[in-house]
Amino acid sequence: MARLDADRLFPLDERARGLARALYDEIRALPIVSPHGHTDPRWYALNEPFPDPAQLFITPDHYVFRMLFSQGVALEALGVPRIDGGPVETDGRKIWRLFAANYHLFRATPSQMWLDQAFQDVFGFDEQLSEATADAAYDHIAERLQRPDYRPRALFERFGIEVIATTESPLDDLEWHRMIRDSDWGGRVVTAYRPDAVIDPETPDFAANIVRLGEMTGEDATTWEGYLAAHRARRAFFKSMGATSTDHGHATARTEDMKQQDAAALFRKALTGDCSAAEADAFRGQMLTEMARMSLDDGLVMQIHPGSFRNHSAPIMARFGRDKGFDIPTRTDYVRALKPLLDAMGTDKRLTLILFGLDETAYSRELAPLAGVYPALRLGPAWWFFDSYEGMRRYRETVTETAGFYNTVGFNDDTRAFCSIPARHDVARRVDCAYLATLVATGRLAEEDAHEVAHDLAYRLAKQAYRL
Amino acid sequence: MARLDADRLFPLDERARGLARALYDEIRALPIVSPHGHTDPRWYALNEPFPDPAQLFITPDHYVFRMLFSQGVALEALGVPRIDGGPVETDGRKIWRLFAANYHLFRATPSQMWLDQAFQDVFGFDEQLSEATADAAYDHIAERLQRPDYRPRALFERFGIEVIATTESPLDDLEWHRMIRDSDWGGRVVTAYRPDAVIDPETPDFAANIVRLGEMTGEDATTWEGYLAAHRARRAFFKSMGATSTDHGHATARTEDMKQQDAAALFRKALTGDCSAAEADAFRGQMLTEMARMSLDDGLVMQIHPGSFRNHSAPIMARFGRDKGFDIPTRTDYVRALKPLLDAMGTDKRLTLILFGLDETAYSRELAPLAGVYPALRLGPAWWFFDSYEGMRRYRETVTETAGFYNTVGFNDDTRAFCSIPARHDVARRVDCAYLATLVATGRLAEEDAHEVAHDLAYRLAKQAYRL
Amino acid sequence: MARLDADRLFPLDERARGLARALYDEIRALPIVSPHGHTDPRWYALNEPFPDPAQLFITPDHYVFRMLFSQGVALEALGVPRIDGGPVETDGRKIWRLFAANYHLFRATPSQMWLDQAFQDVFGFDEQLSEATADAAYDHIAERLQRPDYRPRALFERFGIEVIATTESPLDDLEWHRMIRDSDWGGRVVTAYRPDAVIDPETPDFAANIVRLGEMTGEDATTWEGYLAAHRARRAFFKSMGATSTDHGHATARTEDMKQQDAAALFRKALTGDCSAAEADAFRGQMLTEMARMSLDDGLVMQIHPGSFRNHSAPIMARFGRDKGFDIPTRTDYVRALKPLLDAMGTDKRLTLILFGLDETAYSRELAPLAGVYPALRLGPAWWFFDSYEGMRRYRETVTETAGFYNTVGFNDDTRAFCSIPARHDVARRVDCAYLATLVATGRLAEEDAHEVAHDLAYRLAKQAYRL
Repeated sequence: MARLDADRLFPLDERARGLARALYDEIRALPIVSPHGHTDPRWYALNEPFPDPAQLFITPDHYVFRMLFSQGVALEALGVPRIDGGPVETDGRKIWRLFAANYHLFRATPSQMWLDQAFQDVFGFDEQLSEATADAAYDHIAERLQRPDYRPRALFERFGIEVIATTESPLDDLEWHRMIRDSDWGGRVVTAYRPDAVIDPETPDFAANIVRLGEMTGEDATTWEGYLAAHRARRAFFKSMGATSTDHGHATARTEDMKQQDAAALFRKALTGDCSAAEADAFRGQMLTEMARMSLDDGLVMQIHPGSFRNHSAPIMARFGRDKGFDIPTRTDYVRALKPLLDAMGTDKRLTLILFGLDETAYSRELAPLAGVYPALRLGPAWWFFDSYEGMRRYRETVTETAGFYNTVGFNDDTRAFCSIPARHDVARRVDCAYLATLVATGRLAEEDAHEVAHDLAYRLAKQAYRL
Repeated sequence: MARLDADRLFPLDERARGLARALYDEIRALPIVSPHGHTDPRWYALNEPFPDPAQLFITPDHYVFRMLFSQGVALEALGVPRIDGGPVETDGRKIWRLFAANYHLFRATPSQMWLDQAFQDVFGFDEQLSEATADAAYDHIAERLQRPDYRPRALFERFGIEVIATTESPLDDLEWHRMIRDSDWGGRVVTAYRPDAVIDPETPDFAANIVRLGEMTGEDATTWEGYLAAHRARRAFFKSMGATSTDHGHATARTEDMKQQDAAALFRKALTGDCSAAEADAFRGQMLTEMARMSLDDGLVMQIHPGSFRNHSAPIMARFGRDKGFDIPTRTDYVRALKPLLDAMGTDKRLTLILFGLDETAYSRELAPLAGVYPALRLGPAWWFFDSYEGMRRYRETVTETAGFYNTVGFNDDTRAFCSIPARHDVARRVDCAYLATLVATGRLAEEDAHEVAHDLAYRLAKQAYRL
Repeated sequence: MARLDADRLFPLDERARGLARALYDEIRALPIVSPHGHTDPRWYALNEPFPDPAQLFITPDHYVFRMLFSQGVALEALGVPRIDGGPVETDGRKIWRLFAANYHLFRATPSQMWLDQAFQDVFGFDEQLSEATADAAYDHIAERLQRPDYRPRALFERFGIEVIATTESPLDDLEWHRMIRDSDWGGRVVTAYRPDAVIDPETPDFAANIVRLGEMTGEDATTWEGYLAAHRARRAFFKSMGATSTDHGHATARTEDMKQQDAAALFRKALTGDCSAAEADAFRGQMLTEMARMSLDDGLVMQIHPGSFRNHSAPIMARFGRDKGFDIPTRTDYVRALKPLLDAMGTDKRLTLILFGLDETAYSRELAPLAGVYPALRLGPAWWFFDSYEGMRRYRETVTETAGFYNTVGFNDDTRAFCSIPARHDVARRVDCAYLATLVATGRLAEEDAHEVAHDLAYRLAKQAYRL
């Protein structure tokens, strides 16, 4: 018997719950448009079985291992690889047991909701995960993973994915994407242009990356003009591989609009490694404006994902490297930060710049007022720690009154956890329907309008905003 | 048939909804006290018909045209005047059609609620506005606007306005107010003293304004003492024209309490135009404290409306000028900013200083704790982008537990959109009744107390706080 | 008849309300664990009657007198002692009448809820307090206070307190605690080590305090090594008197991890009184890291309570001194502030560092993400102005999805208002049950899990986190 409540996340009031259910029933089965995420294109290219339950659900998922680590479970015991190649647990079953024994830690978290839904809906495992059921769950899932209909392409189709975007560096040759394209498989997997490694002077090997960028494009990327030309060339190549967007993960939303000669001088300094922290920040800001200018030409939609203090723990960074659950949100200013770019191109309808945030205080104070007036701006959905019931609810309640629905862009799952994708979109659809039903029940939205908006939020806005 | 839900904005739970309805039924018809706003006194003085539906509802309403602009509608097409006098749309019907065709953009926004209520309750137009009904709505409203009972004074009376405050510069001669006072019409329209143009050294023509201020008062306003005397004189004149309050729209809540000789020196510097940005900010801060000192003498209630980054877009400012929907809230500090003024006069019961904010994070963290202890402080209602269902709900939920009800001042509509006034007060009354009903239903407030508080929030507190 | 609603603070929806009631019925009578607070150990040591209702409920309670003061009641009239020993009201009945006549100011505040529950449940006074009932209430309570079963130890037992922590300075001789321990009374009262007075160079008499610290420990506390040794000695003594925790009330969460020689030099400068404000701040930050290092050795749990701008009003500070209701929260950064300490010890499971906050924006943005990954971190409950229905609700809604339940530590009453203790724990238990019931009713938590979590939040987590 299914353990998930069919009416989960809907309003408690009976009338509003009925409205939410009616809205949801119309849009629950719409195709998934996943315009931004981090799944591995290799999966779709090679279509090999996922190795084991632990390597599918635990070891690569920073949501999961950060919670376990917070309560004293060593990352080594979860199989997280060490920088120095030292020994870590490799027995998937042992890792899984540790996870299952601590599953109570995830109570009332979105991870629990995604995991429970994946276990039940994707793998048909309906029992509550616990120390007692750990082995049964492991065996059940491991067996399924060997079946043909649990290979990546089959799951992609079963999940109802109409299109999914991955994220690659300009230095990536996009061979997996080429392989997908050249295959006889019809699944639509597109890339996105994520140039942080050739834009951020504080990236390790920045100068070497620029040299490589030049080699890949036949430009002298060590000159400012050549560097910009190389970007244009790689963007064109990415676009030829399906890309409709770029993505930028700077620590802040800072933009600059310097004179070209000043930008060129700063670029030269960045190449020598002599940039101060302030100069590196200014250079990143300048490059957001340059990227926007290129978007006017090539039509790529731009995304800014600021506000994360990455790799907060020095010892963890030294031992395990990046992306180990130690990225912590910080206060983020958008109003002053975006002004240079917006003064240059903010009123130009040809540009679409999608803003994300990890500082919820900016929703009502800055992001909704900005997106509610600048034609170039759209708001991305609740992101990362806020990709959750409460996070999405606060997002709608703080954004809608000022920016409306049509300056938002639907849902992004932004995940590398493949099996969580249907659950994540389902949660978003439920929360949006719950919100719309509450609006109707409190006289703030006409019922016939709610049906149209539900469809827009679940499907149309993402396609439109990302030009997919 | 009326399209608006009679129980709109009330709690979903049946018992709480019944309580809210009972509270609301007692206070819904109370007179409107509008202690702060921006309607044009000329309307009440001349009592001419409003020109056409577009010029009434669209062209002057930044909430409306900013949303349309955000989705690519040109301001010119909405009839918004250009600085250079270049051509813009003047055909009201064309503007109205564009608005109606995009009316879905306003779904679930307060603008939609105010507009729908004005269409239905003020103009008797009950259909949903859309591309299909655009002409019918236009014709219907245009016809009504020609009737005597749709002239400003008749609407004023129909709206049940007991008193309304407008906002004028010290350089205004208040001729419209004099004309209202000298007429045989009994409506109470008072002014408020808004001296930003003669206080902010960064105002264009600051020095010329000071000269003009001197001419109007017979003081040598170019000396510090004369400048202060000129303020006192204009405040007295405004008071004679009904003013009970002053209003200050600085970008921050900064106050200063310098020695008089230092303030005098800074004023001299400001007059020469040589102030740095920091010095201009300090001067504005000093003048808030000077205004508070004058309030101790003349009893004018003081309002501070900080936190808006005005005219954010340089291109829009250059083409269309100020107040075109590009004012964006920013983070606002009150704790350090207000300390100089509060150390000087914060515990003096004779002073009433009403604080507003656009940074909701300050409600629970700073504003409620400050207003919950300083006798001079009161909290203004949820303002601007937060004059909305969710904005008011968050305001009550974050303010009440620390500041109670009696350190707040009821509702301000703060609008120039005349026909939205009844709807705005109605929304505020509904949201407050919904909040009170929820308190009662959850055992946090006695039912008999809720009735008294409902009356206080709808009527008494505004009169008392503004000394009206 | 009882005036308090038996279902107060529970969800309005009937099913969720029933779930909340069921959860609450299981945990309502659990013993009170009060791991952090400010009751006076002298009460338990001497077990004398509390003097009168005003001295019990009004004069020492900054929540109460700050609200009255905010509406113009003089602190003198409430019996708050003046620094200069000048006359203040001493007639308890007069103070009480003033309080009762203004009791409407507390509508919908947590103070009202605590007071009403104390009047009803502790003193058996069931009428609504008002000007009309003031004398009856005063007489009723005053009479009870003379009874043996209203003495501190009897109330302690009646309240079901299993253990309570007080807070003392290292310079305190803990004589009251010794007296409690040496008595034949079995109540468990422990101390906590609050060293601000010997850590903050900006404390008046800092150098004298250090000399005294040396005298008490036989160390030369004027050298860095002796100073640290003196801390270790006092911590050991506090531990011998039951302490399981330390507490730190700095204005910010800043930490430092300097070289020992630099810390020693800064300490020497602090002793001479020559520290700049920035240096004093750095020294406080260094000492948090030193305290954490000592905690690794002696196992004392560490608490940080940052974010209050203390004694905001200079005139009130001059006339009445510290802690007079003028402590105002400010924006607080944790991410950068805690990094030095966390880099040194944040992944060490032996350390428990409990973070509190007065800036609610940090819950979802910083505190939950930090506590959700660092094994040394736990989150304290909603604190001070946020120890309230809405405050606790927002805390759970913003913290749980990222940090789960098990990185939080249950409830602290943090109070010096003895008779409010049962009410405060009761409010916390009700709000938590309401939250859990809502999670169950919306399909976010299994019902059987909710029962276990309710018990954890009410009892187990506090004992475990504080090692009690």
